[in-house]
Amino acid sequence: MGIKTKALQKTAPQEPFRVVEIERRDLRADDVLIDIKAAGICHSDIHTIRNEWGEAHFPLTVGHEIAGVVSAVGDEVTKFQVGDRVGVGCMVNSCGECEQCLQGMEQDCLRGNVGTYNSTDVDSTITQGGYAQKIVVNEHFVLNIPEGIDLDEAAPLLCAGITTYSPLARWNVQAGQKVAIVGLGGLGHMGVQIAAAKGAEVTVISRSRRKEEDAKKLGAVRTLATGEDPDFFKNHRGEFDFILSTISAHYDLDAYLGLLKPRGTMSIVGLPPEALAVRAGSLIGGGKVLTGNNIGSITETQQMLDFCAEHGFGAVIEKIDINEVDDAYDRVVAGDVRFRFVIDTDTF
Amino acid sequence: MGIKTKALQKTAPQEPFRVVEIERRDLRADDVLIDIKAAGICHSDIHTIRNEWGEAHFPLTVGHEIAGVVSAVGDEVTKFQVGDRVGVGCMVNSCGECEQCLQGMEQDCLRGNVGTYNSTDVDSTITQGGYAQKIVVNEHFVLNIPEGIDLDEAAPLLCAGITTYSPLARWNVQAGQKVAIVGLGGLGHMGVQIAAAKGAEVTVISRSRRKEEDAKKLGAVRTLATGEDPDFFKNHRGEFDFILSTISAHYDLDAYLGLLKPRGTMSIVGLPPEALAVRAGSLIGGGKVLTGNNIGSITETQQMLDFCAEHGFGAVIEKIDINEVDDAYDRVVAGDVRFRFVIDTDTF
Repeated sequence: MGIKTKALQKTAPQEPFRVVEIERRDLRADDVLIDIKAAGICHSDIHTIRNEWGEAHFPLTVGHEIAGVVSAVGDEVTKFQVGDRVGVGCMVNSCGECEQCLQGMEQDCLRGNVGTYNSTDVDSTITQGGYAQKIVVNEHFVLNIPEGIDLDEAAPLLCAGITTYSPLARWNVQAGQKVAIVGLGGLGHMGVQIAAAKGAEVTVISRSRRKEEDAKKLGAVRTLATGEDPDFFKNHRGEFDFILSTISAHYDLDAYLGLLKPRGTMSIVGLPPEALAVRAGSLIGGGKVLTGNNIGSITETQQMLDFCAEHGFGAVIEKIDINEVDDAYDRVVAGDVRFRFVIDTDTF
Repeated sequence: MGIKTKALQKTAPQEPFRVVEIERRDLRADDVLIDIKAAGICHSDIHTIRNEWGEAHFPLTVGHEIAGVVSAVGDEVTKFQVGDRVGVGCMVNSCGECEQCLQGMEQDCLRGNVGTYNSTDVDSTITQGGYAQKIVVNEHFVLNIPEGIDLDEAAPLLCAGITTYSPLARWNVQAGQKVAIVGLGGLGHMGVQIAAAKGAEVTVISRSRRKEEDAKKLGAVRTLATGEDPDFFKNHRGEFDFILSTISAHYDLDAYLGLLKPRGTMSIVGLPPEALAVRAGSLIGGGKVLTGNNIGSITETQQMLDFCAEHGFGAVIEKIDINEVDDAYDRVVAGDVRFRFVIDTDTF
């Protein structure tokens, strides 16, 4: 039979979004039906549905920053009840059997986790994302959104939040450390808030000072503008314990590694389109660490939500109607958003 | 007055070595005079004295894998007595005052540690290395060579040993893990022995199977030859917890990162002449770690020597006379050494 829901869909990369009716599967025993209240717009949604990463399966609904309320549960669901405030992020399934899944690292499932959209689910259907009014998800991949965070402000945490929380947690960023967040977009503005909440002294590194006031409000002690100082990388050499790079364009990786103290770590979460150059000596001198991060496990995602609630912050958002999504995409690409668009699904 | 000693010296990059008399400083209160018994030949010696890295100060004596016996001590020396078996590695001084030195990380001294040769010492003299009969070194930078390791086999541990021990220790390589050592030269043959002694399952990755028998004797369970399998990187994808790269030529870093399990670590100790290319996705997918290593602290160097003695191994060496060093250099460059040349300083 299926469960009908309104959704924003494209049937080709360059078309505008259209409101259509799509079908979710009937609830399996371990499924949760969610009434979606808010859906964040992630840059990955844009890359995918504009087919910039290839492999888009049309017709397609995207969206993997989903917040809503449980409206029905399968017979064997134990984690959730009708009325619970919940979220869904970038994955909705994994094999559950491999070494990684058994360690609770579903994001690194050796058979590939099942993405929330444009991914082949275990039943061979193509997953459809959260720009919609309803979604059905296996309870294991559903998160509790704690009281104290609005659903609107919670939605972007499910991708931008966990993507920045996970490396800051893994590398034990803590009070007394000097942390640089490179780029102040959707990811960066979460990185600043999380690192500051952990007590680190946070510096935003950006091309300009355009967002300096925002950075301060988010918890940064200063903004450094690379475009203002020809000797930027020399003048700030060896200053940071940890650098989180959200840059998605090409950059001089060796120069950034030079900003680290000995034994310092740089974690990459932005995805430049081309390979970066790195000299072995940039890592050997001072035993520096270069790493990357792809979201986090379900357990860690819940820890992130609890952490944000405990520290009283969510994402900083601009709420839009469903008919504003096409414009919002252009503004995201232009970097013109403070700091995440969230679709109000009441406007369907 | 100074302490006279015979040494091998060049006055220009392309000259042969000549035996000359050089002068060591008179013992300061915290200095140790060492009768050198064995001096290893490290590829860095060759790069430096052939001026391939620039900045060579002639006339120059190189050598930073030094083993010998204490023959005199300064008035305030507490760590050593005449007759002690000792070693000196890649550094002979550091500022002692910076954040790194105060943490016992002399190798990362923020003012730069003082290299054992071709480095400007705190008294402004240029340091002269270990291809000699005697050397004077501050006791802090002198190591105890435990009973159970011959001085000949201990000398290369002071550079090749610590360079490979330090990353294996830092990243907690242990029993049950799958470790790849890439390249089986002076560094690689120490990496294999140390990783095997830690209980890891060690694979040697090399272009050919030329040294397969050697690898087995050193403790590797297998040798994989990249030159034999066009699908090498595909066939061994995701196999290793840890990769130690000793390669000093250009290589496909992304391909090697693909050999790691999720969360796996690749540590670089070989120094290719040019930058390597790395795609952000190679690090983001699976949260992989790329790092480098430059020797280790004095404390860790002592731990390494004790570890090797406890497990009953040193470097595998070919002992040569002082008049064979020029030929030995050519053989090192050609990769024709199993696995380290050590100069017998009794032949001066």
